[in-house]
Amino acid sequence: MASRNNSFTAVIVGANAAGLSAASKIRRMQPQARVLVFEKSPDVSYAACGIPYWIEGTVPSAEKLVQLTPETIREKRGIELFLTHTVVHLDAARKQATVVNSATGREFSMPFDRALIATGARAILPKWPGSDAKNIFTIRSLDDGKKLQAALTARVQHVAIIGGGYIGLEMAEALRARQRKVTLIEKLPQILPGYETQIAQRATELLKQHGITVYSGVEVTGFEVNKANTATAIRTASLPPRIEADMVLVAVGVRPEVELARQAGIALGTTGAIATNDYLQTNHRTIFAAGDCIEVTHQLSGKKVWLPLGPAANKQGRIAGENMAGAHVRYWGALGTAVFRAFGLEIARAGLSTGEAEQAFGSAVVTHIRAHDIAGYMPGEKAIDVVLIHDKRTKRLLGAQLAGHHCIGKRVDVLAAAMFAKMTVSDLQKLDLSYAPPVAPVWDPLLIAANVAAAK
Amino acid sequence: MASRNNSFTAVIVGANAAGLSAASKIRRMQPQARVLVFEKSPDVSYAACGIPYWIEGTVPSAEKLVQLTPETIREKRGIELFLTHTVVHLDAARKQATVVNSATGREFSMPFDRALIATGARAILPKWPGSDAKNIFTIRSLDDGKKLQAALTARVQHVAIIGGGYIGLEMAEALRARQRKVTLIEKLPQILPGYETQIAQRATELLKQHGITVYSGVEVTGFEVNKANTATAIRTASLPPRIEADMVLVAVGVRPEVELARQAGIALGTTGAIATNDYLQTNHRTIFAAGDCIEVTHQLSGKKVWLPLGPAANKQGRIAGENMAGAHVRYWGALGTAVFRAFGLEIARAGLSTGEAEQAFGSAVVTHIRAHDIAGYMPGEKAIDVVLIHDKRTKRLLGAQLAGHHCIGKRVDVLAAAMFAKMTVSDLQKLDLSYAPPVAPVWDPLLIAANVAAAK
Repeated sequence: MASRNNSFTAVIVGANAAGLSAASKIRRMQPQARVLVFEKSPDVSYAACGIPYWIEGTVPSAEKLVQLTPETIREKRGIELFLTHTVVHLDAARKQATVVNSATGREFSMPFDRALIATGARAILPKWPGSDAKNIFTIRSLDDGKKLQAALTARVQHVAIIGGGYIGLEMAEALRARQRKVTLIEKLPQILPGYETQIAQRATELLKQHGITVYSGVEVTGFEVNKANTATAIRTASLPPRIEADMVLVAVGVRPEVELARQAGIALGTTGAIATNDYLQTNHRTIFAAGDCIEVTHQLSGKKVWLPLGPAANKQGRIAGENMAGAHVRYWGALGTAVFRAFGLEIARAGLSTGEAEQAFGSAVVTHIRAHDIAGYMPGEKAIDVVLIHDKRTKRLLGAQLAGHHCIGKRVDVLAAAMFAKMTVSDLQKLDLSYAPPVAPVWDPLLIAANVAAAK
Repeated sequence: MASRNNSFTAVIVGANAAGLSAASKIRRMQPQARVLVFEKSPDVSYAACGIPYWIEGTVPSAEKLVQLTPETIREKRGIELFLTHTVVHLDAARKQATVVNSATGREFSMPFDRALIATGARAILPKWPGSDAKNIFTIRSLDDGKKLQAALTARVQHVAIIGGGYIGLEMAEALRARQRKVTLIEKLPQILPGYETQIAQRATELLKQHGITVYSGVEVTGFEVNKANTATAIRTASLPPRIEADMVLVAVGVRPEVELARQAGIALGTTGAIATNDYLQTNHRTIFAAGDCIEVTHQLSGKKVWLPLGPAANKQGRIAGENMAGAHVRYWGALGTAVFRAFGLEIARAGLSTGEAEQAFGSAVVTHIRAHDIAGYMPGEKAIDVVLIHDKRTKRLLGAQLAGHHCIGKRVDVLAAAMFAKMTVSDLQKLDLSYAPPVAPVWDPLLIAANVAAAK
């Protein structure tokens, strides 16, 4: 590979949200820079969060999920993109990456001025007996999605999903849309761990209404696997001791992909993800990190947390790119704002859960209200649950959880803005929120909740 | 009327949002208090904003719009409610109200300890030649709605709406749903005055797509009226000089109902609405005022403004009631947050318009972006327009306008919270907003707009 004279070289590991945001930003700020992006998979810049909608059939093809083609990245953005290339080592002292082309097996070195680790996160697949059976899937990468999609043949009638988080629920909906029998198994006493009971119960009832069998408080211990290495049943530590299934989806969470960082002597934080400073530099100042592989400062608690979510990854990538190109932009941390939808019910949260608030602030006052989501006389009116968590002493809003059918995600954003601004629940009462009969009741549910919380 | 011993008496003029909120609050805080509410109309506590949906047929009956029946108000809440009773005078010095029972014509005096003026606003019907024709309507009270509904017979095929504000657009939709030909006439060069051109144009195009004839920059000068006192055509100052119609709806705005206040020697503010202090007391400290008849302090500009909107009226009523019952609660002003929907398009604003921002802060930087409202690959994705208005010097967010099809009202609320917290457009960039493919794109449109604004 020839190098351009007088040019700055950036090596970026990973071609998704953070990696490509950074690469594009560097090229825009430093048009002479050489920007090399190495991606170990054959896929680039896809919308991972859209995979359940492709499985469901709402999105017609995997191609639709690809946001930038390799051609666009190379030709329009001037980025040197290498697919199926794994960076196996980063030498911070020599400023050199060791790369293996998985297609040819060829290994080569690539010097850099600055590098970015944007290796993301990977799905957890616990080492239960039988976990390597060929009909057990996780769903994180587009490749995972393609494998599951290919395996979802007419013979697969019953799918068991292990894990009652948002991926589990989104996939339960997708598989019901595909006419499969679905069983959801959660180890903890309720699905949606971290959410208040009222919201978890509402989701559980909805799942059951849609024909999903839900087991909570049921721990998986392994699989019955036949001679063809196909799991035929799940074994559990409790009742029911045995759950038959034709396919198993394990959706018990993700873990930061930090092997490369660890080998490069890059410090990890207490969360197990890569530690960076506010400028997204690792302990080796020429090596930056961004996206789902790093930990961030929580905007409320000030503590280091690991919040692997798409919007933050995009913002971090953009800022890492700016700083790699010579700027000095601080990353501002995150609030853990998140939303998902299953069977028409939107569930969202921002800030701390009750447990997290108690840990960080010593006290947490929880307010739950259920109200009309739009004017009570309008057709389509449904109930909305609002949970506010505030600090007893200062009345500061620390967390929020919402469930309902109308604009739940954008409603939680109001509370995310309030938390960013360090508002108290009394401040929240003063917000002038919009009203129209098809949009909200005249007393917005957020204000009803704020009135109740402020009086506590 | 017998008076209870040792009891406090409150007289409230007007039985809608503000009046009944206050009455209920006083009764809750002072169970011994005597609370008398006088309402000049025969209707009580109805959702005025729901009237277009009743005309449209979405809400099946006017009764559905009644939120509290007289029986509930009297029996459950212990409020002495008098319908078709007009308060013709308030004597602040003697603390006495003069009331006329319109049914009997009987006039009587009612002493009070504290009184509340919650007379609301009334529709403007300019004194054009022919304005009193019997097929010319305004739409503000439930009674207005009933008259229009009764007049909307099969013979009425073409309705002309004068006024291109949100009521005009909501009624255009309602009347199209009722299969009428609709012509909308706006005096100013664009419909939706106060909104940026991009949003007004988008609304205009949508109206035209739905078969509405839209004339902007056309000033009405009067009506052609036949011998039966029925208007047959509208005369204008420009082209077209003559617009035939079977029914005319005048929706050119509202005006505070301040006659009683004026007669009682209560000071009005510069806006023409009743002036109060932060505790919602008028210049006569025993007489409070709340709702659409008062002016309020704008949360951003600090100036007195008149913003006759339901949510503020409810909050003011509640606070006036608390203070009449002996509390000392400050009203915190409003931001003018508002939303409406017509033909599926939601349009919302909060804070100042460009003109208002220039007047209050001397400069206004306007940013307009058009983006995906949900993930681009999801079915149902539509364009969202986001307008941010910020102060050039401080970068403080001063105003916002949105148009689109997904959760526009609740999205503008995020910006209302940001303005309440005095955020800059750079702060706005840092908000952690929720993302899921059916809810929002990974870069929320508000953040895209904030990025563009912050770079200006």
